[in-house]
Amino acid sequence: MLVTLTTDFGTSDGYVGAMKGAILSVAPDVRLVDISHDVPAQDVTAAAFVLRQAIPYFPAGTLHLAVVDPGVGTARRAIAARFALGGGGHTFVGPDNGLLPLVLDGGEPEVAVVLDRPDTWRTPAPSGTFHGRDVFGPVAARLATGTALGAVGSPAGELARLHWPLPHTDRDGIRGMILAVDHYGNCITNVTRETVDRWSDGRPATCYAGSQILRGLAPTYGAVARGEALALFGSDDRLEIAVHGGHAASLLSLHRGDPVTLVFDGAYRAEPHAD
Amino acid sequence: MLVTLTTDFGTSDGYVGAMKGAILSVAPDVRLVDISHDVPAQDVTAAAFVLRQAIPYFPAGTLHLAVVDPGVGTARRAIAARFALGGGGHTFVGPDNGLLPLVLDGGEPEVAVVLDRPDTWRTPAPSGTFHGRDVFGPVAARLATGTALGAVGSPAGELARLHWPLPHTDRDGIRGMILAVDHYGNCITNVTRETVDRWSDGRPATCYAGSQILRGLAPTYGAVARGEALALFGSDDRLEIAVHGGHAASLLSLHRGDPVTLVFDGAYRAEPHAD
Amino acid sequence: MLVTLTTDFGTSDGYVGAMKGAILSVAPDVRLVDISHDVPAQDVTAAAFVLRQAIPYFPAGTLHLAVVDPGVGTARRAIAARFALGGGGHTFVGPDNGLLPLVLDGGEPEVAVVLDRPDTWRTPAPSGTFHGRDVFGPVAARLATGTALGAVGSPAGELARLHWPLPHTDRDGIRGMILAVDHYGNCITNVTRETVDRWSDGRPATCYAGSQILRGLAPTYGAVARGEALALFGSDDRLEIAVHGGHAASLLSLHRGDPVTLVFDGAYRAEPHAD
Repeated sequence: MLVTLTTDFGTSDGYVGAMKGAILSVAPDVRLVDISHDVPAQDVTAAAFVLRQAIPYFPAGTLHLAVVDPGVGTARRAIAARFALGGGGHTFVGPDNGLLPLVLDGGEPEVAVVLDRPDTWRTPAPSGTFHGRDVFGPVAARLATGTALGAVGSPAGELARLHWPLPHTDRDGIRGMILAVDHYGNCITNVTRETVDRWSDGRPATCYAGSQILRGLAPTYGAVARGEALALFGSDDRLEIAVHGGHAASLLSLHRGDPVTLVFDGAYRAEPHAD
Repeated sequence: MLVTLTTDFGTSDGYVGAMKGAILSVAPDVRLVDISHDVPAQDVTAAAFVLRQAIPYFPAGTLHLAVVDPGVGTARRAIAARFALGGGGHTFVGPDNGLLPLVLDGGEPEVAVVLDRPDTWRTPAPSGTFHGRDVFGPVAARLATGTALGAVGSPAGELARLHWPLPHTDRDGIRGMILAVDHYGNCITNVTRETVDRWSDGRPATCYAGSQILRGLAPTYGAVARGEALALFGSDDRLEIAVHGGHAASLLSLHRGDPVTLVFDGAYRAEPHAD
Repeated sequence: MLVTLTTDFGTSDGYVGAMKGAILSVAPDVRLVDISHDVPAQDVTAAAFVLRQAIPYFPAGTLHLAVVDPGVGTARRAIAARFALGGGGHTFVGPDNGLLPLVLDGGEPEVAVVLDRPDTWRTPAPSGTFHGRDVFGPVAARLATGTALGAVGSPAGELARLHWPLPHTDRDGIRGMILAVDHYGNCITNVTRETVDRWSDGRPATCYAGSQILRGLAPTYGAVARGEALALFGSDDRLEIAVHGGHAASLLSLHRGDPVTLVFDGAYRAEPHAD
């Protein structure tokens, strides 16, 4: 069975190796697939963003082990859950710190359990600082080899929740924000194609981001000249600000959390405005 | 079957995971081997350099998926091709942007097809910005599970071409340039051992690189004192400038594109000269 | 069979790919597990630290290929060895430069051989700069598919040795040093839980590190307020200096090699002292 790995462990220490070893010691035949170990340290929202980009494309039945765990060793719970995303049923194993609800964007898992069976861990006395190796990895390995959710924990009840910031919408436009800056410097917002379609009524839009005024949405990076800024829907159907062949975040001084505004043609505020 | 992955996606986003998921959704049993996801963004030449270092050592029959794709979403074509390198037959899947011809160093693939069968993609309406996930990955997965090249595309005709810069050679010496600076700071040039052997006639050479004058070629890094610069043939039989135990590019202020000159003993210009 | 990979090759060149290809060309069915390719260049001690963190958690029978090899191409020997760690029997393949003895912390391997059979290499004339691809990888692949140690080399006799610096201990306290700074900025010392237990006699301790005076040892990061420094035993049962939610090394100006002192309550020097 496939087990994907998403952590903030970095790749210069032995932590990723230790967790892989702990998994393979329980389940020598699972296939490990690294999604990312370079999530910013302890950044649960960034981890959720990465998982949202990747999970929907995995086959049904994949198990996703996600360990970004600022609360390791405290009272935060450890969970495993079954959920649907992108048409497939998947399993999540990780801390109960809001990560899974962010991935599900407010949706609910089908089943969720608290990992309260120390006999399914690597040791009943796990390290206070590394549950990836001592709890999450071994439990994921058991689930991947067919152990039922109910055999690794008890019903979890309410999960800890985090929420994505929602854009503000009205008939004149949409005001969103940058959720993530990717490796290329593209600035990905919380404005989805669906939201734009619903509110624009087919009207073209002008996009305001930092000092940029971008008229219309481009179909792809290469639709504008090299070095030129553009707004487009990225591969997750979210509005993003990019520069063809360049690093938009650096070139345009844009950062995670910055506002991005779409104003529809004919709107009362169709001209540049002082946001 | 083995499928190697070479991209400029970086490892902090979900893009690598999404592409892996798209492959495994089509072909759950292929074995994915990461070559590098840290190719400099949109740098086709650097990607070719990485592939040249790695491909010849893979077993015959390996499929190499290489997505460094500055033209994604534009008219640039998507291709798959069968080629020979390092004694083995391999398959390439990626954009038609000169990458494969660089890898083949001017050689031709045995067969090349344009990926024009949307029913072999993840979706007939692929994202305008992420063909790795929507086109290249799924097609690679099909090829890896036995689908014939002819079933994923039509004959490609002429491929887009890029060329490696060639060194200038005469009986007095060779003037090349630095093609890549590796992780250790070694400066790898376009001067091959074969070129030196052909033109040197067995004469020892002096190497000029930046402010360095290096007499003779060393057999390995440890042949000179720690901290000392040297010229030697690296693991790909290309002339490289290195510092034993140090980062040559930083210590000697050398960069990709800088000239490196070999002058053979007894040549008219055997003394330092003002290049 | 499982083959783990630990190198200082970095991930932006083709070197990792070339070594993987060389392994898979000999043994197409081995399962490769990346531990780290981001060991600092030529830093044998750092490589040993990474391996100590990871190896004990792998199943018995795993083969660990570790190539951090500042002496490549010189007279340093290439070895393979069988050893016990963390309850399992493992195999090591790599250079004879002190790495394995560091991993074994002074212990001896059960058997060690010098790799002196060129017919088990990729080529009898290996590159002078890349034995990972031409010697270690292919030999590891053979061992992983059942070739006996004795068939790839001759008895090695004494291995090259490096030693971990030991802490100084007396009835008043323990003076150790920082062995490694991890990805999170945690500063991991050479003071083990066992050493503290043996010398403290149950007395609480005060920890001095840089300008910090930390009273008592915390059970986990979350036991103190965010932004506060703490001393605790990390996941390898070594004393570490951390900051809850922060990068201790940066925030406290601590570096590898810096002293860390524990003074037990009631000791003659229980008050801050000028170390």
